[in-house]
Amino acid sequence: MAKYPEALENLIQSLTKLSGIGRRGAERMAFGLLKQSPDIASQIASALSELHEQLSTCEHCGFFQENGNCLMCSDDDRNSSLICVVEDPMDVFAFENSGGYSGLYHVLGGSLSPLKGVTPSDLSFDRLLERINESNIEEVIIAMSPNVEGDATALYLHELLEELKVSVTQIGRGVPLGGNLEYADSGTLRLALETRRPYH
Amino acid sequence: MAKYPEALENLIQSLTKLSGIGRRGAERMAFGLLKQSPDIASQIASALSELHEQLSTCEHCGFFQENGNCLMCSDDDRNSSLICVVEDPMDVFAFENSGGYSGLYHVLGGSLSPLKGVTPSDLSFDRLLERINESNIEEVIIAMSPNVEGDATALYLHELLEELKVSVTQIGRGVPLGGNLEYADSGTLRLALETRRPYH
Repeated sequence: MAKYPEALENLIQSLTKLSGIGRRGAERMAFGLLKQSPDIASQIASALSELHEQLSTCEHCGFFQENGNCLMCSDDDRNSSLICVVEDPMDVFAFENSGGYSGLYHVLGGSLSPLKGVTPSDLSFDRLLERINESNIEEVIIAMSPNVEGDATALYLHELLEELKVSVTQIGRGVPLGGNLEYADSGTLRLALETRRPYH
Repeated sequence: MAKYPEALENLIQSLTKLSGIGRRGAERMAFGLLKQSPDIASQIASALSELHEQLSTCEHCGFFQENGNCLMCSDDDRNSSLICVVEDPMDVFAFENSGGYSGLYHVLGGSLSPLKGVTPSDLSFDRLLERINESNIEEVIIAMSPNVEGDATALYLHELLEELKVSVTQIGRGVPLGGNLEYADSGTLRLALETRRPYH
């Protein structure tokens, strides 16, 4: 009898589907829940059930809709001449939390990846072009993740946008703030040298 | 608008109640769930709901009952002259997985801790004494965790058992198998020296 009871084993296997959680971590969580009041487990269960019920994807910008109301499109105070193109809704939160941007966003829904079978038709490029054509957007900021898929997506997007009368920029790359050069990887250091600017 | 939608924030806050999960880990999990099919979230939710519904504590030995049937008490093949006293049901799995024990278990339900307000009446000492008196147990193996609370519980238990006609042992302590002496902490090394035995 070294097997766990069925309900415990089920929970452990379900928890390993969470990002960053392996078998051992899932066991620790399940054991922790067993020691705590049943209220904690049911509270997490109901929050999980409500997640996809209450949140959906805005067809216009690709960000979250909460109960049918897009949190970004419903905000009239944003600078509508700027649009920042990101991969995921979570990237929007990252920029919002930085406090350095007040323009619009367009969420592509991922990055191009032939290996994972993600092609241009899976991402909302068409919707972005429509948005640019329909409105007075002057600058498109490409903010893809600094990896192979992100670079491929940025290149594709840049080619798409070349024909339109908008300026296209991409976010800066180099050593991150608060970092220590000693610990920066060699790719980042090479990039930081390539993207050097006059001192001012 | 740097706040998360309510359903997402609720989920993040619930997930931080899992063992070993902080705010950042919970965000990562919640974002991961949003990217995946809603089935994953509802699967985890139902496993969480069923956990406390299907598992309860056996009043006899303190181990798990699955749908009212104790997994340990219902096993007639065990050596009923030995009883191993542990803190938590999870400790039972640890011993069972080691493959080195086939006796009975008694789960105390925790360890004595004046700081956390855990007194002898919160643990199942009385039930253990009843079990020893009612049956032909010859040896009680104390298997508390090697920390202050575990040591205090072992001492208390040893005093309780002194009056009974059973032999009382405790599990060995020292350097763990597969470890490297270089990385063993000084407390463990001191203990390993104290508990040295004739070579054979």
